[in-house]
Amino acid sequence: MDLSRRAAEIQASPIRKLMPYANAAKKQGIRVYHLNIGQPDIETPAAMMKVYHELSEKVIAYGPSQGLDVYRKSLVTYYGRHGIHVSEDDIIVTTAGSEAIVFAMLVTCNEGDEIIVPEPFYTNYNGFATMAGVALVPVTTYAETGYCLPEIAQIEKLRGPRTRAIMLCNPGNPTGTVYSHDEMQAICELALRHGLYVISDEVYREFVYDGAVHTSVMHIAGMEENGILVDSISKRYSACGARIGCIVSKNKSLMTAVLKFAQARLCPPTVDQLAANACVYLPDDYIEAIQREYKARRDLVYEELLQIPGVVCRKPQGAFYVTVKLPVPDAEDFVIWLLKEFQVDGETVMCAPANGFYATPGLGEDELRIAYILNKDDLTKAMHIFRAGFEIYRASR
Amino acid sequence: MDLSRRAAEIQASPIRKLMPYANAAKKQGIRVYHLNIGQPDIETPAAMMKVYHELSEKVIAYGPSQGLDVYRKSLVTYYGRHGIHVSEDDIIVTTAGSEAIVFAMLVTCNEGDEIIVPEPFYTNYNGFATMAGVALVPVTTYAETGYCLPEIAQIEKLRGPRTRAIMLCNPGNPTGTVYSHDEMQAICELALRHGLYVISDEVYREFVYDGAVHTSVMHIAGMEENGILVDSISKRYSACGARIGCIVSKNKSLMTAVLKFAQARLCPPTVDQLAANACVYLPDDYIEAIQREYKARRDLVYEELLQIPGVVCRKPQGAFYVTVKLPVPDAEDFVIWLLKEFQVDGETVMCAPANGFYATPGLGEDELRIAYILNKDDLTKAMHIFRAGFEIYRASR
Repeated sequence: MDLSRRAAEIQASPIRKLMPYANAAKKQGIRVYHLNIGQPDIETPAAMMKVYHELSEKVIAYGPSQGLDVYRKSLVTYYGRHGIHVSEDDIIVTTAGSEAIVFAMLVTCNEGDEIIVPEPFYTNYNGFATMAGVALVPVTTYAETGYCLPEIAQIEKLRGPRTRAIMLCNPGNPTGTVYSHDEMQAICELALRHGLYVISDEVYREFVYDGAVHTSVMHIAGMEENGILVDSISKRYSACGARIGCIVSKNKSLMTAVLKFAQARLCPPTVDQLAANACVYLPDDYIEAIQREYKARRDLVYEELLQIPGVVCRKPQGAFYVTVKLPVPDAEDFVIWLLKEFQVDGETVMCAPANGFYATPGLGEDELRIAYILNKDDLTKAMHIFRAGFEIYRASR
Repeated sequence: MDLSRRAAEIQASPIRKLMPYANAAKKQGIRVYHLNIGQPDIETPAAMMKVYHELSEKVIAYGPSQGLDVYRKSLVTYYGRHGIHVSEDDIIVTTAGSEAIVFAMLVTCNEGDEIIVPEPFYTNYNGFATMAGVALVPVTTYAETGYCLPEIAQIEKLRGPRTRAIMLCNPGNPTGTVYSHDEMQAICELALRHGLYVISDEVYREFVYDGAVHTSVMHIAGMEENGILVDSISKRYSACGARIGCIVSKNKSLMTAVLKFAQARLCPPTVDQLAANACVYLPDDYIEAIQREYKARRDLVYEELLQIPGVVCRKPQGAFYVTVKLPVPDAEDFVIWLLKEFQVDGETVMCAPANGFYATPGLGEDELRIAYILNKDDLTKAMHIFRAGFEIYRASR
């Protein structure tokens, strides 16, 4: 029985593909520090857990396809605090950020249309593009310049007759890069000049350090028709398993079309929406504490990486990832080696090879991504193992 | 700003499209009995609610893309009870039945490929087909014969070079029809003869009455490579808002491909899965009580419908829907009339016009779907209003 072409083409998760090596290590009794995935160890807010504990509904019923009214109203408040002025009608709640991205692709692109995206990029964009039949056209960014955006002219060169949108992740996964207001302004001007959409993935909005300021696509004047914000509560409230996101746009006909796709799948999870709603009313110091914690983790990882001779890494200002270029030809081989052949006192560490984050074949082979999602004690141990391992690995090559 | 062609083409929900009329009636203080949607009023099982109430996790984390191990193991038990013998590896948990259908379409079909589906069919199949770029080819069934399957030769005639699958909903939404073992056998033989998949939507598995026996695609011998079961807990446990479904197949390469699509969206809702897990261990009499309740409701609706002269309706044996052919040219006009111009003691009723359930233009204009999802008291009142309204409507035409 034949499967579809897209069933053959869809990318297996490069973040999860090395899991068999990790599982084999664990079977031998080795503890593996997972710096390969974006699952934070921060506790989900008590106010959110309380909603599950005190659920009083008798029937877990369908909610509206656009999301629960109460939650959409709260999101208006949430975005207002971030200088993003939208109404409920500009918001459709989705099953996590994933669905928001798929919807954004489906309403802007036909099969075979193109979206320009800076690489390295969040690898699951590939899967969503396969689902929507969209071609991702990468514009390469470099470790040497902290993965900032290239000259606009270079992005413009990639534009063709089928280009429909530019997709950004800001702050960036896997790079941790925060785009400046000027960069966002320039990208949006390019989009306006050529009638393109800007699909802006802002799930790490709050994760900015060193005084960096996050610029939303919704902050840029004139983007009412062209701007699409995709979002998720997963990282912000350490609630990855709650599967609540949203798509936001002031483009009314676009949102009407999104609603029709949303109606086909009926609704996002009802109870998780109620729980997400509570998070909008957390005290300000909740996010401040998270920021302090992640900044400390980032500093720890960055300091350790700087100790490695020949490493290329600019200090990232956002998200909870560092992508680093190592002085070895094959970072994936190093990641596998750490799992298969290395340990310190029965412990080792797992990272994500960065080649899977590039669409251009051959790029990122000497890079890997570290997610600093473990507490400082574990992270300290994990980074010591990483460094010690790297020294031995490199000397043996 | 142009949207995509599919954004223009995707069907607005025919079940929800008349909601503005219902809302207008409610604004005037009129109570509307909703028989237009498949949201049961049955309470979600206490054992399921208990899982939310006693949730002990500190972090609502990503689960595995294929679903939580504990839940997949439970599903093996659940299916075993229904004579469906599968292993955990044959099951991938999805975000409701909706996602299971989209995955099934994506892995079996390329853009432009065709799936044959008996009409009237669950209208959201249209939306999923638009998302996957698949063409649905309808084979018409008729009120006069209880919407049973037509002769196999007639289905066979619709097969073309791009046909990849046959999709069934059994028991049927919107018809309530239960396919016999012979019908399922014949469909599966057709599929095997021509190398087609059978995508079997069995979310109403337990909802069978009058001794009718449900036949799963997984019951038919030889369908290991060709059979795909899509499922959902929404109706069975009155948990529509929990968004937990699954896709089941013994075709290993197909499931490997599904897993890659599943990895792109990371995971289905974690807490809802834990809650769904509890439902597998409900006592047998839970489902028996539900069956008795729905059977009584069906009898009530059916008896009332029979009182209407000229109505065409065979007693349906499953699900919680009746599709009925009325002696009027435009059933949608009648539905709108009930909402706009009719009331009994400040109450009226809403049904779903059936034209939206047909893919063939012009069919179903004189049919509507009644979902018997209200308690017997409300349903009695609703059906009296329906009948009284119909008499006046018809006399005035």
